[in-house]
Formats: sequence, structure tokens, C-alpha cells
Amino acid sequence: MVHIIMGSKSDREVAEKAEKVLKKLNVPYKISVASAHRTPELLKDIVEKSDASVFIAIAGLSAALPGSVAALTERPVIGVPVSGKLNLDSILSIVQMPPGIPVGAVGLDRGDNAALLAAEILCISDDGIRERLHAYRREMAEKVEKDNASFENRGE
Amino acid sequence: MVHIIMGSKSDREVAEKAEKVLKKLNVPYKISVASAHRTPELLKDIVEKSDASVFIAIAGLSAALPGSVAALTERPVIGVPVSGKLNLDSILSIVQMPPGIPVGAVGLDRGDNAALLAAEILCISDDGIRERLHAYRREMAEKVEKDNASFENRGE
Amino acid sequence: MVHIIMGSKSDREVAEKAEKVLKKLNVPYKISVASAHRTPELLKDIVEKSDASVFIAIAGLSAALPGSVAALTERPVIGVPVSGKLNLDSILSIVQMPPGIPVGAVGLDRGDNAALLAAEILCISDDGIRERLHAYRREMAEKVEKDNASFENRGE
Amino acid sequence: MVHIIMGSKSDREVAEKAEKVLKKLNVPYKISVASAHRTPELLKDIVEKSDASVFIAIAGLSAALPGSVAALTERPVIGVPVSGKLNLDSILSIVQMPPGIPVGAVGLDRGDNAALLAAEILCISDDGIRERLHAYRREMAEKVEKDNASFENRGE
Amino acid sequence: MVHIIMGSKSDREVAEKAEKVLKKLNVPYKISVASAHRTPELLKDIVEKSDASVFIAIAGLSAALPGSVAALTERPVIGVPVSGKLNLDSILSIVQMPPGIPVGAVGLDRGDNAALLAAEILCISDDGIRERLHAYRREMAEKVEKDNASFENRGE
Amino acid sequence: MVHIIMGSKSDREVAEKAEKVLKKLNVPYKISVASAHRTPELLKDIVEKSDASVFIAIAGLSAALPGSVAALTERPVIGVPVSGKLNLDSILSIVQMPPGIPVGAVGLDRGDNAALLAAEILCISDDGIRERLHAYRREMAEKVEKDNASFENRGE
Amino acid sequence: MVHIIMGSKSDREVAEKAEKVLKKLNVPYKISVASAHRTPELLKDIVEKSDASVFIAIAGLSAALPGSVAALTERPVIGVPVSGKLNLDSILSIVQMPPGIPVGAVGLDRGDNAALLAAEILCISDDGIRERLHAYRREMAEKVEKDNASFENRGE
Amino acid sequence: MVHIIMGSKSDREVAEKAEKVLKKLNVPYKISVASAHRTPELLKDIVEKSDASVFIAIAGLSAALPGSVAALTERPVIGVPVSGKLNLDSILSIVQMPPGIPVGAVGLDRGDNAALLAAEILCISDDGIRERLHAYRREMAEKVEKDNASFENRGE
Repeated sequence: MVHIIMGSKSDREVAEKAEKVLKKLNVPYKISVASAHRTPELLKDIVEKSDASVFIAIAGLSAALPGSVAALTERPVIGVPVSGKLNLDSILSIVQMPPGIPVGAVGLDRGDNAALLAAEILCISDDGIRERLHAYRREMAEKVEKDNASFENRGE
Repeated sequence: MVHIIMGSKSDREVAEKAEKVLKKLNVPYKISVASAHRTPELLKDIVEKSDASVFIAIAGLSAALPGSVAALTERPVIGVPVSGKLNLDSILSIVQMPPGIPVGAVGLDRGDNAALLAAEILCISDDGIRERLHAYRREMAEKVEKDNASFENRGE
Repeated sequence: MVHIIMGSKSDREVAEKAEKVLKKLNVPYKISVASAHRTPELLKDIVEKSDASVFIAIAGLSAALPGSVAALTERPVIGVPVSGKLNLDSILSIVQMPPGIPVGAVGLDRGDNAALLAAEILCISDDGIRERLHAYRREMAEKVEKDNASFENRGE
Repeated sequence: MVHIIMGSKSDREVAEKAEKVLKKLNVPYKISVASAHRTPELLKDIVEKSDASVFIAIAGLSAALPGSVAALTERPVIGVPVSGKLNLDSILSIVQMPPGIPVGAVGLDRGDNAALLAAEILCISDDGIRERLHAYRREMAEKVEKDNASFENRGE
Repeated sequence: MVHIIMGSKSDREVAEKAEKVLKKLNVPYKISVASAHRTPELLKDIVEKSDASVFIAIAGLSAALPGSVAALTERPVIGVPVSGKLNLDSILSIVQMPPGIPVGAVGLDRGDNAALLAAEILCISDDGIRERLHAYRREMAEKVEKDNASFENRGE
Repeated sequence: MVHIIMGSKSDREVAEKAEKVLKKLNVPYKISVASAHRTPELLKDIVEKSDASVFIAIAGLSAALPGSVAALTERPVIGVPVSGKLNLDSILSIVQMPPGIPVGAVGLDRGDNAALLAAEILCISDDGIRERLHAYRREMAEKVEKDNASFENRGE
Repeated sequence: MVHIIMGSKSDREVAEKAEKVLKKLNVPYKISVASAHRTPELLKDIVEKSDASVFIAIAGLSAALPGSVAALTERPVIGVPVSGKLNLDSILSIVQMPPGIPVGAVGLDRGDNAALLAAEILCISDDGIRERLHAYRREMAEKVEKDNASFENRGE
Repeated sequence: MVHIIMGSKSDREVAEKAEKVLKKLNVPYKISVASAHRTPELLKDIVEKSDASVFIAIAGLSAALPGSVAALTERPVIGVPVSGKLNLDSILSIVQMPPGIPVGAVGLDRGDNAALLAAEILCISDDGIRERLHAYRREMAEKVEKDNASFENRGE
């Protein structure tokens, strides 16, 4: 199970990108809202009670959430920086974790890639997800191939 | 009392800049080491048991410490970003706190300014510190005046 | 009393975020407009005549205002960088103060956090504000808890 | 098994940080050198023949390696940006992957955190690693606690 | 012949800027869509089968495409970074190629300049293109001269 | 006389900010359009034939124009970076001139400040401009004073 | 006369680059030390009593000095950002002045260019400086021509 | 023939990286020194008299040289940004050329890649260079393969 935690309800759209991918891959998931700063106790409670195998933590600004989740668990944590006025703030806050407490950061607003990485992690012991993930990748490639074909007669 | 907390013993030099100023201003202080990520429980314990009026939190990289302290207390927290390979990471992680949980950030490695800001805060109800702070500022200005005088005959 | 000074009337919206919080916490405040560059004399006059315990200085671009206020007083100054075309300009201008003259910077456009930090400072000697601040934080946490609850049945 | 791939022999020191952690946690690993740009065929061969469950890809500059590995496999890929003259180049090249092909980025030169994240991933189906990882985290926390104790009598 | 490859159909507008210039200069070209990450095999196939003298590779985010094309051929590759939320990501990913595999980067979204550079390269052995390119430059200069004339009576 | 040169007609709005100030201060000026890259000969001609005392050069992107003007004359050159997708490009291109060929850079899109700086330079030998400039500054200050007064009864 | 003001004695080296050029061009100058933040009164006194035609203000970090000088005078002010851990801080603080109070920024640590720009300004009414400046530029060009000649037989 | 032009003799080391590659590939070349700002006439003379097929222009700071060369010729120009205190200045100054005058930028200090790109361009009509370039690429790949082999027994 993948547990998506967003730092604020306003990060919903990014969470929904993750949700959409997990649904498509038929990966069970859960969504919570908990702020590392406003509700550290709630966050602790959520992480400790969670039976997730992987966490996806979504946050903007001085995005402390992914690191806070990682501090509370030894399960893998994927961090998603949310875009805002600066963008470098959330990216660097998530990427530049200190030694000892890892977070795997994906790109700005890339809830979809966080879900795919979570699915790849679950694949290690779940062949069903692996097959669906494989089909997803194949589909994505076919989309590009089709796009490529649509330009075939252009030029020359 | 001012409570200096550093995220790692390697931030010692910046903490000592704060210490030097607090000693000079005769402001009581305490120093602790606690990582927001590696020892969240220790940090919680330190902050909750502290009888400090102001906290100074010192950290580098995705400097979560000042925000974590601010999440645990309603007393003022001053954050000091520590320099490293990027510098923008610790600055932005400390400055860009989400709404509701304030941290007052001073400059890169500016333990001294954090101590002065803490002293200014304590001044509100402590005239002794105010006088010593005033003398400190005066001394600092005199140093500049002397430096200025030393260039007096240069040029023209 | 908290004295909010903005560098230009165009920073009004950020000042109003501070105002809203101070009103809610029932903290007395005052608002002035004075430019460090266009009206240094007015600024000096305002700061020297002010009976504020804490200043909040709001400015964009090469945001000199917070530093200029800090140069004119030994009371605590909180600086609020205002967003614009670059954002790094106002943030770095406020954060990177030279040794000796501290400013506590909050995030881009975070008038609200500046007000909260000012309130935390005043709490040291005002139990009424402390109680209202505590209630404010509790309310904020409850808002997150409610948001979290609203996602409870999502997924799985 | 964890497969560490570095883009150039000059990234050796970062790879050795990963190696050291994996050895300590008794996680089997392999190290290869393959450039996404200079030896795309070798890279393809290495990834396709690898029986690794997780890849760690280490690269500097316009660090294409982690993305190239991710393009060749559906197993999880952790990317480690290597520091250089700019640092933002390798970080952004690894973090900002396009939709569909995820890489989990850790901090600049953080081979150690990449190894820990890989270990966390393997934990999902390996209790032995989980126990050793847990001990590692505990040890790390104790180091901070000891550092904290060493400052106990400082100040006041 | 110039072969324009874009990483995604969404980079179409930038490709069309290149197309427009190539048409005007009567330089034969071809357009393909192939992602370095989603369809590495398709990309390889396109590059290896192409009889182009010069490649123009257009991509955003951690823009790996130009480097991937350069890894597959010894013909000149011009890279065009596509604008997005950060812009520095695509620019640095394309500019900061490792030693040995060159890419010539043009400015953000500058499909037009990529086409002109490609035309300049083809000029070396094609006098027809040289003449048309020369006329194009002359026309461009005349446009500036006319703009300049339109301000002649302004001021004074 | 002040000679405003813009790199492209699209920089017109920034030039007009300068024009407006110069008109108000009754400083004679001229406006030209000449690209350092597209029309180096035209630029040379304009600068060499100009009887201006000060040049204002306005350009965006890799804003070479101010430096090119400075290379062609020994009269003072003020550079105005024009905003775009990056902003740091035009600022750094104008500020970071090599030793020997100075350009005085003003802020992003600050045609107005360029005009004021030009007026200040002309003041050295023109008392009329000095008086009008003085009145302009006074007026500007009064505007701030009035804005300040409008907030007088706010708060407390 | 040119008045060089540095924010701190530690900016001496940059001031000396300016001094060296002014001496060579036989331009009278004066050097002062005054901090915008630590000694605003001293700064005011220095600027108001100065009979300089042009000011050069040198400062690092959140380099407020050039703007503070510009706020105190209507004579032209050239700002020189001093390098440090970030560099963007002093550059942006000096370049991004608000409308109405212009500063002409030169490059990082470019005391030499500040002096040349000051000399160019003084040239407007001083033919002697113009001639020496012209000779300086000629000399500089000859140095490049000589360097170029030294590579003449390299290659081919 | 490839013509290497550096903006200052101090860029020599980067030029020598290009020279070394061109010698190895037996590509005829020439080296000149000419500053876009200090010696625009010399630069014009060098470019107009040159019988080069491709130019390599090397410069730091607000690196105008590549653009200035491109403004003087319709032959392909490769720009090499030289590292310094900021690095983003030279990169952005070279990459962000305005529409109409293309420069192909390679990475920071990458004289070697500039030479390789120049060689790739000359290959279009010179089979000898193509063969030597091909051998160079093969050699480079073999070096990586050997490095890879040297790690074969590491781990597991």
C-alpha cells in the first residue's frame, strides 16, 4: 500500500496526479493531510499507524514534510516538491536531506512520477503490479510512436 | 534565557559566534545538539523541557531544524542557515516557512546576528541587557569611525 | 505594540496579512509608509518616535527597509520580502544583513508570519497574547485535522 | 541486490559512500562504470543483464545517467547528483525528469543516502536488512545524543 | 538535410519556429518525435536511419534528448531548451554536457536560432543556402534600420 | 543630451519610462533602435555620430547592447536589463562587464532610474536640471509622506 | 572629485582597485569607511559634507550602502558589489533599486570599472581627464593586440 | 579551418583544451586574442580576414565575444563560457542570444567539446576528419569500458 501525505489541502492537485496513476495500476493507496509544522503530532500518528510500504510526501515552500516523514519511519519516502513563487525552495528543501535520512525526490509537481516510483518499488514483490506497470510504459511509448508518425510527411 | 540548538555538531562554529555575543552581553544561554531528522524525539524533549524565552536553531542543507523547533513551541525561533555547497538550500529552507509557523531567519552563518536579535527580544523586559546591547552597538560604530579616520588622508 | 512599516503603498496587501493576524490576536499595532531610499528622514522620524516593541518592515526589490529600520533602533525588526519579478532580490537583501545589525526574515509575502513572530515576541511579557496565540495555533491545527478527515475514505 | 552505476570513474568517491553503507548493512551490491553519453550500448547491456532490484546512478554536470537507466528498466532508480562548478546543473538534471520515467533524487554527493534508500526499498521483503537498518538509525541517533550531552554544561 | 527531433509533441511550437526558418531558407528538413526516456529504441532507430547532416533536438525539463542524440551520432547536434516552470533546468541540462559528447545549445525556445545555426553549418558546402541566409540576415538588419528610422524625430 | 538606444523595438515600453522622466526634467534626448548583434554597423554609426553626453542602452536576453555601446565610446553608458523568461540573463550580462569597459546597470526594466541617473550626471554642469531633479525628488518624497498620512489612524 | 565609500574596512581591496585607476587618470578622490547599517549618522555626515561630484559605494552581502548614499544625495552614485559566499546577494541588492533613487551598478569586485565610469562622468566637463582616459583605453587595447600577436604562429 | 578566439589571454587554458583536441584530430586551426569590448576593431578585422569555416569564441563574465563574432559573420560560431565567481553570467550571456544571430554554446570551460563540435561540422565535407573523430569516440568509449572492468569484482 502507498500512503500519500500532503502538507496542505492546497497540494491536492499534485496528490491527484499520483492517485490517478495508482488507480490505473491498481495499486492500493491512502491519502492523508498533515503538516510537518502545524500538526507534527497528527503526522506522527498517521505515519506510525500506517501499514504502507511506501510513502509519498507532497509539499511546497520550505517543504519539510518528506523529511519529517522520513524521520518517523524506516520505510521508503518519495518527496514531491510543489511549485510556487520560487520553486527552488521546495526542490532544494526536499533534495538536500542530511546524511542518514534519505528521501527520493521527484520533479516539481510530479505526483505521477512519485506514484510510478512507488509502483516500481512495490513491483519487487508483486508481479501483478509489474505487469500493469509494464503495460503502462508500453502505452506511453506507443503514444510517442503515434505522435512521431503524425509528423512523418512534414518537411522535405 | 536563549537556547541554541544546532542540527549537528559540525555546525559548532556558527553556534560559537552566537555564544560569543551572548557571553559579551551577559545573556544566559544553553547549547544543545539535536537533529530534526535523526533525533526528532530528542528534539521534542529538549524544546518542551526548555525554559528558554527564545530559541536559536542552526542548520545547513535542507535546514528543517528551525521549522521543527517552531512547530514544537510558541516561543520565538531564530533560524541560522549554515553555508555549504549550495547555500541557497539552507537559506530558502529556513526563510520560506509555510503560513502559521514563523521563523525569523538571519544571514548565512550569522550566529552573531541571531544572538543579537535574541538579545533585542529579551531587552523588552530586561533593562540590563538593553544597556549592554546599546554599548555593543556603540562600540561597533566606534570601530567603523576609527576605520574611517584611518583613511582620512588617503587620496586628493 | 507592533509597528508595521511598508516601503511603498504598493506593499499594502502584505501589510494587511499582518494586520489581519494582529487584529485576531488583539495585539495593538500601527501602520506607516516610509521608504528607506525616497524618505530616509521620514523613516528616521517614524522609528525614533515609535513606542513599538517590535517592528515589521515590508519591502520588495533591493529591500533596504528592514535593514534601515534595524540601523535606527535596538528593538527587534522582522523583515518581509515582497514578491516581484525576481524574488531572490528581496529575500537575499533582507536575509543577508551584515554582522551587528540583525533582521529576522520571514518568507516571501508572509505578512501573516511576521505578525505571528511579533506576537510570539510580545508573549514573553503578555499572557493574554500568549493565550490567544495558543488558540490560534490550535485552530490552525484543527483545520488541518479536518482536512485530513475529509480524505479518510479516499483510496484503497 | 543493489547495482551502483557511475557515469565516470571520477565519481568514485560518491560511489564509495554508497558502498560503505551497503557493506555495513550487509546488502549485496555491484559497481559498474558506464556513461549515458559515451557508452550508451555498454549502459544498456549492464542494465539489461543486471539482476539488481534497485539501481543507484551517480553523475555530475548534465547528469543524464539516472534518467537513462530509468529509461532502460522498470526497476526503481535512485539518482545521485555529483557536485561541480555549478551544482544546480546535476541536481536539476536528475530531479526534473519528464512524466512517466521516475527517478528518486537524493542530495548532492549523497551516495550514503542513496544506499540507505535502496536498503529501505529492499527491506520490504527482507527482514534481515530491516533489522540492520534499524540498528544503523539507532546508532546514528545515539551519536547525536552523545554530541548533545557533550554540550550539557555549556552556557548559563 | 536537417532533422528536427522533439522530446514530446508538446514542444511543437518551438519546432515550428525552426521549421519556419528552414522553409524560408529552402533547407530540406524532417521532423520526428522521440523521447530519450520514454522511447529510447525509437530514438536510436530514428537517429541511425537518418541521413541528416545536422540534428536539432528540442526538449524541456531535464532535457536529455540533445545529449542522447549526440551519444548516437557523430554528426553535429544543436540543442534547444524549452521553457517551463524553472527554465534553468532545461538550459543547464543541455549546456553542461560532459567532455567528449558535444551539443551546441541555443537559447530558451529558440527554435529559430537552431535552424539558422544548422543553415550556417550546411552553408559550408552549399552556396545556395549561403545566399539565402545572407539575404535573411540583410532583411533582419533592414527591419532594425526601419525601426530605428521610425524613432528619428522623437525627443529633443 | 541623453541618447537612449534600445536593442529592439520590443523594448519600447522601458524606453518610454526613461523618456517620460527626461521630458519631465526637461532634459534633451534622442531615441534610436540598433541591435548589437543584428546591426553592429548601424550601432557604430549611431554612437559615433551622437553628440550625447550620456547613453542609456536597453536590452534583454544576453543583453550585449550596453557593453557594445561602451566599447564604442568613452562617454558614460547606463545599461537597463529588460525582463523576460529568466531575468538573471539580462541582469548578469549587463552587470558583469569585464575590466576596462564600464557600464552602470540599473534594475530590471528601470528605464526611469536610468533617466534619473543620466540627469544626475548632467547636473554636474547644468544647474537647471539640478533644480528640476531636486523638485522631482521632493515630489516623490511628498507622495510617500501623503501615503504615510493616509494610514495614520489604522490600528491600535 | 570622486568619493569612494566602503561599507567596511574589509572591502579595502576592491576600493584599492578603484584608487589605482583614479591615481593613474590623475582624478582627485577621497576614501571613507561608513556602514549604512552600523553608522547611518556617520554616513549621512560624510555624504552631506562631501564636495564630490560622483560617489563610488562598495559593499557586500545585502549591500545597502550604495542605495543609502543615493538616498542622501542627488549626485551620481556607482555601486560595487563585493563577492562573498553567495554573490547574487550583493549584486541584486545593488542593481534592483526601487524607482526614483538610481544607482549604477558595476560588476562583482569591479572597483576598477567604477573608477573608470566615474572618470567618464567627470570627462563631460574636464578635458584633461578625457585625454588620460583615452590614453588608458588605447593602452588597454594595445595590450590585447600584443597578446593576440603572441599567438600568431600557433596552429595550422 | 577552425579559428579559436579568446576574449582575454587569461582564457588560455580553455583554448588549450580545444587546441589539444584539434591537434589530435589533425584539424587545422588558428588562435587569436580579441576582446569584444576592449578591441572591437581588432575583432572585426580578425573575423573578416579569417578563412575559417567555424569559429570557437571563448569568454567569461558577461561573455559578449561569441555573440560579437556571430554578428560579424554568417559562419557557425561555437561559444565557450569560462568559469569565474558566478558561472551563470557567462553561461547565460552566451546561451541566451536574441533571435537571428545564433551561437551554439557548449559547457563551462569545455574547450574540448567546442573543438569536437567544430570537427563534427567539418566532417560534413571531410572524410579524413570523420575517421579520426570516429576513432576518438571509440577510444573514449574504450576508456570507460576499461574503467568499468576495473570494478568488476567489487561488491557482492
